[in-house]
Amino acid sequence: MARVVVVTPNPAVDVTYGVADQATGESHRVDTVERRPGGKGINVARALLALGHDPVNVLPLGGGSGAWIETELAALGLAASVTPIVGLTRTCVAITDPLGHPTVYNEPGPVVASDEWRALLADTARLLADADMLVVSGSLPRGTDVAVVADLVAAAKTANVPVLLDVSGASLTTAARVGADILKPNAHELLEATGETQLDGAIAAIRELGAGLVVVSRGTDGLVAVDENGDYGVPAVAGVSGNPTGAGDAATAGLAAALLAGLPVADSLRWAAALGAAAVLRPVAGEVDLDAFHRFLTPESSTE
Amino acid sequence: MARVVVVTPNPAVDVTYGVADQATGESHRVDTVERRPGGKGINVARALLALGHDPVNVLPLGGGSGAWIETELAALGLAASVTPIVGLTRTCVAITDPLGHPTVYNEPGPVVASDEWRALLADTARLLADADMLVVSGSLPRGTDVAVVADLVAAAKTANVPVLLDVSGASLTTAARVGADILKPNAHELLEATGETQLDGAIAAIRELGAGLVVVSRGTDGLVAVDENGDYGVPAVAGVSGNPTGAGDAATAGLAAALLAGLPVADSLRWAAALGAAAVLRPVAGEVDLDAFHRFLTPESSTE
Repeated sequence: MARVVVVTPNPAVDVTYGVADQATGESHRVDTVERRPGGKGINVARALLALGHDPVNVLPLGGGSGAWIETELAALGLAASVTPIVGLTRTCVAITDPLGHPTVYNEPGPVVASDEWRALLADTARLLADADMLVVSGSLPRGTDVAVVADLVAAAKTANVPVLLDVSGASLTTAARVGADILKPNAHELLEATGETQLDGAIAAIRELGAGLVVVSRGTDGLVAVDENGDYGVPAVAGVSGNPTGAGDAATAGLAAALLAGLPVADSLRWAAALGAAAVLRPVAGEVDLDAFHRFLTPESSTE
Repeated sequence: MARVVVVTPNPAVDVTYGVADQATGESHRVDTVERRPGGKGINVARALLALGHDPVNVLPLGGGSGAWIETELAALGLAASVTPIVGLTRTCVAITDPLGHPTVYNEPGPVVASDEWRALLADTARLLADADMLVVSGSLPRGTDVAVVADLVAAAKTANVPVLLDVSGASLTTAARVGADILKPNAHELLEATGETQLDGAIAAIRELGAGLVVVSRGTDGLVAVDENGDYGVPAVAGVSGNPTGAGDAATAGLAAALLAGLPVADSLRWAAALGAAAVLRPVAGEVDLDAFHRFLTPESSTE
């Protein structure tokens, strides 16, 4: 059982409204309401907990919505180190109907003050003294100096703990520049952050900046990875359909768990693909189907 | 200064998201977020407070959203007698763009248990011992026995205090049957509740059930009223445009304030129309433009 510190810089209350139909400009009666603690890092931590690891969430939380997330994490059995903030933790609303894709409204979220970031970094450093890995996952709140990402990577290096980041934009290039051990963007994020048009070139560019292992998720096209020893790839698990929300985060957790277990990169990619697919089978983002995970691993791998 | 007990059976956190456009099935960045304590009775109480009266809100509240409303009412200087409930107070989300009408998603809201209603009725009865009027405004939470409306009217009668209800459906006909002093539905609600097709017939039917004064708001067609002495009507204030949300509640407050001041029905309708129009001028539901209110009253009335 590994101790993993998971930072979610921009957590959210994820609300899903089920409605009979959606019509712009009309009033709708909401038939079903679901609320869950959201933010990519929280999903990663939930999947790590399901795998039997010992994650601890680090998050800035404020207001009633922040207090609600703290309560819900405790109910899920997830440890949390909360940095109180003055701002109100954001809410993201998804409206689903029987026909179409969800319509999503993402609040901009609070501005986290620099002294609040300092407190979060101090908590992270303290927890890393007794941890096996640092994971940083998800967007930064608006207005956040990207130096926060560099500081998180530096804290991991000081503690001699590997750091895995699933971040995008300037956070991604910054993490590479300061020598992050593992980056796991999706293909779109990596192309956008590097300004490249081809995935090979983008991976080379981000590694050139200073990143160690770069793992790129490509949805139904599986995962590819490059490190100093070569390149790797696995297909997505075939024939899986369901709820893709949170699947990328489960893949991150699978990757982290495999690397923590000392598996080689090729096998770690299989764990990532299998746990991602195991999340697709669950209707609720953040949950994984462990039986399916083991089933997905068996035919192609003897690592279990 | 009159003491008015205002019951909001189904309060809500009203959230308004401003977006650049709305597209079903897409993800949207929310540009502006506004949260306010919602529910028709709360709007009535705010308008009464603005007129210099002393309203006290009676509401069932639960969960983080309920706690938030309690805090916000205090910040607005509004007295509140809160009945704690196990359920989570509902949230209603309105999405607005520069072009169209708002798209609204109304959560179903909590089920309020019968012992929670008993506690609310006891609080109401206690407050009515020292009050000049009872106002009940807005929908009942789902699953609520309409006997709650009858009990509220009975509590007012026991305390010898007039009761004004802005309710719809079975609540409206029930209030009439138990002899409510003043009913203020809008035309659509009155037609629907009575099953009549013409407004005259609907007013006669609801009065036949046992209602005293019946005031019907007709939007831009003004207000009409009938009591035992005859019928009355006023046009809407002309040339007013803005935000109609909450205007009906301000009209209710204007009607209540005029009746509390001892004004005749005809003048009370003018107060209702003027305060409703004064609310339209304010971008935020629940607020009224008092200068406009006085201006709207002056040319047509010498009641000030």
